[in-house]
Amino acid sequence: MSKEISQAVVKRLPVYYRYLEELLDRGVERISSGDLSSLMNITASQIRQDLNNYGGFGQQGYGYNVLYLHDEIGKILGLDRAHNIIVIGVGNIGRAISNYSKFEDLGFHMTGLFDIKKELIGQSLHGIKIRDISDLPEFSKKSRIDIAALTLPKDAAESIVKMLVAIGVKAIWNFSLTELQVPSDVVVENVHLSDSLMRLSYKRTNN
Amino acid sequence: MSKEISQAVVKRLPVYYRYLEELLDRGVERISSGDLSSLMNITASQIRQDLNNYGGFGQQGYGYNVLYLHDEIGKILGLDRAHNIIVIGVGNIGRAISNYSKFEDLGFHMTGLFDIKKELIGQSLHGIKIRDISDLPEFSKKSRIDIAALTLPKDAAESIVKMLVAIGVKAIWNFSLTELQVPSDVVVENVHLSDSLMRLSYKRTNN
Repeated sequence: MSKEISQAVVKRLPVYYRYLEELLDRGVERISSGDLSSLMNITASQIRQDLNNYGGFGQQGYGYNVLYLHDEIGKILGLDRAHNIIVIGVGNIGRAISNYSKFEDLGFHMTGLFDIKKELIGQSLHGIKIRDISDLPEFSKKSRIDIAALTLPKDAAESIVKMLVAIGVKAIWNFSLTELQVPSDVVVENVHLSDSLMRLSYKRTNN
Repeated sequence: MSKEISQAVVKRLPVYYRYLEELLDRGVERISSGDLSSLMNITASQIRQDLNNYGGFGQQGYGYNVLYLHDEIGKILGLDRAHNIIVIGVGNIGRAISNYSKFEDLGFHMTGLFDIKKELIGQSLHGIKIRDISDLPEFSKKSRIDIAALTLPKDAAESIVKMLVAIGVKAIWNFSLTELQVPSDVVVENVHLSDSLMRLSYKRTNN
């Protein structure tokens, strides 16, 4: 399915999910495509087109049932199951993402922290022990790893990725400033903060 | 100009810049489009097409002059000038980005840190004093603010954005989980970490 859906649609799905969650929090039970459109600043026809990729979910004259649409988009995003995450590289970014309660709310559970720095190993960060990266294969036998977040310098990333692939990790959240080479059964999502900052500089320069 | 260039191209420009920087570091003076293509895992025709948006920069049979292409892409990205950044919200993410030496290397200078939490105000973080957010208008009169990074909860974002617009800030790097409403002369680049994690979950589910 993913092959046929454009990247732009996939990019918007989490945004829909967030807004629907907010509507649920506010006790809104149904919403017209027009109101959803104003709220999200996306045209109503774009919303219909996006959701039609997955079967629609709206009813003519009724609009969208917020809870139903929220749950269906959640399923499409894979949020109907739990994901265990480990963080490799307990620097500033590693610390930040390992302590972000929003992820836990979405079903992403931080289960392990790894580093190579001897002085960090054995310390605990909000209840999770920092382990030596060499303990990763052993850890993976006892604890399922769904996602590995790489928050380490790019020079270290390649060898760690080989290790992750070898132990069967299929999803990598990559904060390292490099494009990872992985087999086709492994998915990667990049967060390249300095690229983002350069894009902002571009927008600023060309606005 | 920016209107005619697709988002996908703009997204790749920082990637080109990073790879060219790496080539410079390794002392590479020129590179064929084929070699650049293998290195970046982007087809040579895509590279030519992307760069043709800005005039080309390559020579038939010679390839690309690395330093020239690096500097030209740097100019397109607005990296030929310095950018002063302030960070609003000194939580985990705020701390992480305010201490990221890569940004400084690219010409982004962290000039101010702001928060509302009384216990943080007056503290210093790697040499920068944390100021009360109410001091922002006064600060902006003495120190040019090119970019404001918003690393605070979404509920606080709206009023801060109004303040930023009022004091003339034209570029916002938004880590708050909300879509900001800004005038057309203000640019926004979003880093929504939980959206990114949901996209990874989507890829994992649909791979």
